[in-house]
Amino acid sequence: MAVYTEVTDDDVAAFLREYDLGEVVSMKGIAEGVENSNFLLSTTTGTYILTLYEKRVKRDDLPFFLGLMEHLAGRGIRCPTPIHGRDGQALRELCGRPAAIVTFLQGMWPKRIHVNHCRKLGRAIGEMHAAGRDFPLRRPNDLSVDGWRPLLEACGARADEVEPGLARELKTELDVLEQAWPRDLPEGVIHADLFPDNVFFHQGEVSGFIDFYFACNDQLAYDLAVCLNAWCFETNNDFNATKARALLQSYQEVRRFSDAELQAIPTLARGAAMRFLLTRLFDWLNHPEGAYVAPKDPREYLRKLRFHRDVRGPGAYGLT
Amino acid sequence: MAVYTEVTDDDVAAFLREYDLGEVVSMKGIAEGVENSNFLLSTTTGTYILTLYEKRVKRDDLPFFLGLMEHLAGRGIRCPTPIHGRDGQALRELCGRPAAIVTFLQGMWPKRIHVNHCRKLGRAIGEMHAAGRDFPLRRPNDLSVDGWRPLLEACGARADEVEPGLARELKTELDVLEQAWPRDLPEGVIHADLFPDNVFFHQGEVSGFIDFYFACNDQLAYDLAVCLNAWCFETNNDFNATKARALLQSYQEVRRFSDAELQAIPTLARGAAMRFLLTRLFDWLNHPEGAYVAPKDPREYLRKLRFHRDVRGPGAYGLT
Repeated sequence: MAVYTEVTDDDVAAFLREYDLGEVVSMKGIAEGVENSNFLLSTTTGTYILTLYEKRVKRDDLPFFLGLMEHLAGRGIRCPTPIHGRDGQALRELCGRPAAIVTFLQGMWPKRIHVNHCRKLGRAIGEMHAAGRDFPLRRPNDLSVDGWRPLLEACGARADEVEPGLARELKTELDVLEQAWPRDLPEGVIHADLFPDNVFFHQGEVSGFIDFYFACNDQLAYDLAVCLNAWCFETNNDFNATKARALLQSYQEVRRFSDAELQAIPTLARGAAMRFLLTRLFDWLNHPEGAYVAPKDPREYLRKLRFHRDVRGPGAYGLT
Repeated sequence: MAVYTEVTDDDVAAFLREYDLGEVVSMKGIAEGVENSNFLLSTTTGTYILTLYEKRVKRDDLPFFLGLMEHLAGRGIRCPTPIHGRDGQALRELCGRPAAIVTFLQGMWPKRIHVNHCRKLGRAIGEMHAAGRDFPLRRPNDLSVDGWRPLLEACGARADEVEPGLARELKTELDVLEQAWPRDLPEGVIHADLFPDNVFFHQGEVSGFIDFYFACNDQLAYDLAVCLNAWCFETNNDFNATKARALLQSYQEVRRFSDAELQAIPTLARGAAMRFLLTRLFDWLNHPEGAYVAPKDPREYLRKLRFHRDVRGPGAYGLT
């Protein structure tokens, strides 16, 4: 639930004077998203999203994120599009925070995933990757393989508080992943956080991607690896290979995987599970008492990691 | 922050089929309100509020609340208006909770109160009281004077955890209020919870009242007494008599206070402070560890109570 900064009616009226968006009609804090404060802003010209960037988003990264959304939207990818003020700026300040107004997207994120969602998602990711090809800014993925060891070391022996033996298991796992991690797969701009709550659907079609605040340059197939974890496990943690096949095959209707990518998919999926396991583990061990947002249970991703560890090839994901 | 119940896209699509409101376009949880789960629901016909009533609202009271909103809206008072389904029902069930769709109101609640807000508010309350006169349902105010002793006894000696001596001070205070409480002032339907976050303004005018879930039959002047506490103290707890005068005088442009009401206002204001002090005290002492909503500090209302206790007559509130 996310409204960390209180914005008064006077604040927003003054802020809107920097834009050609008319007068404020209503503004309501949105109870979704955990990183930033988001408001649904209705004005006399339409409905928009006002975001105040809270401390987990680095100010220096905002030109990359906002620029990417604008770039993708200009190439027909539905995503929030930053709106420029009268001075040409899309990024300004409100209540001491970096702030931007973006367009409002139709649709809702799917809470129960069907195969059709995975099929539509795969193709939409392919189109997003294609549209990002000529985006000129660069941002490394600081939560890829090289970022995992510092995270694991920050958790240390306390990992065993979550499950006895976990510290040792993750140490071994990381040793393997650092060795096995592919380094020369096709790269591009990836979203890197394509969980269902970041993908809106409307009338059975993808109506947009949101929350580009982990987007970065990395190996393209890694975006799919994140989705294998986030979209293709049932709530009981069983892996649904039909959903995986739908996801990956529809992606390949836009861009075919190379042989090297195909062979790397089990490792990428295992690494993507590791990445979310480690950040959840860190948050689990370090959240303050009575925290505003309940931390997510890291064990969900531990089970996913173990699934991928036992996979022997891309066939497990419906690829042949 | 209030979304206690997760509603899926499938749930809301099925729910909307009971109405003539078109298809769902988007739905977002609203991070305001502490009693119920509220969603901003956009459909192909417009924007609405979907409310799921959580456990603090009694199911048996809902016909009173929804009926009142509809009654007031029919008499020109701007407030959320329940929308009837194809079967004529406004109250139905969603995800195991009583649920209703109401109209969306323009405007925002004022976070910094100016005298103009109080002036507009007084008249709008007068108009609401007049419009409620012929509402046929009845609901007693279970948080008026007779409800305070059980609340105080439930807090017991633990009140001293908030401030040493508080248990004794409140006991004495309650003895006085039970004796002095007026019983025969003009009655009607009151809102009973007119805090600034329940009153929207748009372009300097009251654009509507929301959150009627404490509404009841009681002495009309008690609504103003709640507002004296909620609108007329500065953030440092100084009382602003200019705001009080603006509130009460503009109310009297619609309905003049009787002499008995005038004389009773200091006691009503003192009692209204007691009511919110007691519920905040109870919540403060009884909120679970790591609660979702941080409890409000009861001491704010203790200071307000003490202010009213030292008042000698209605002149303190700008009345003559």
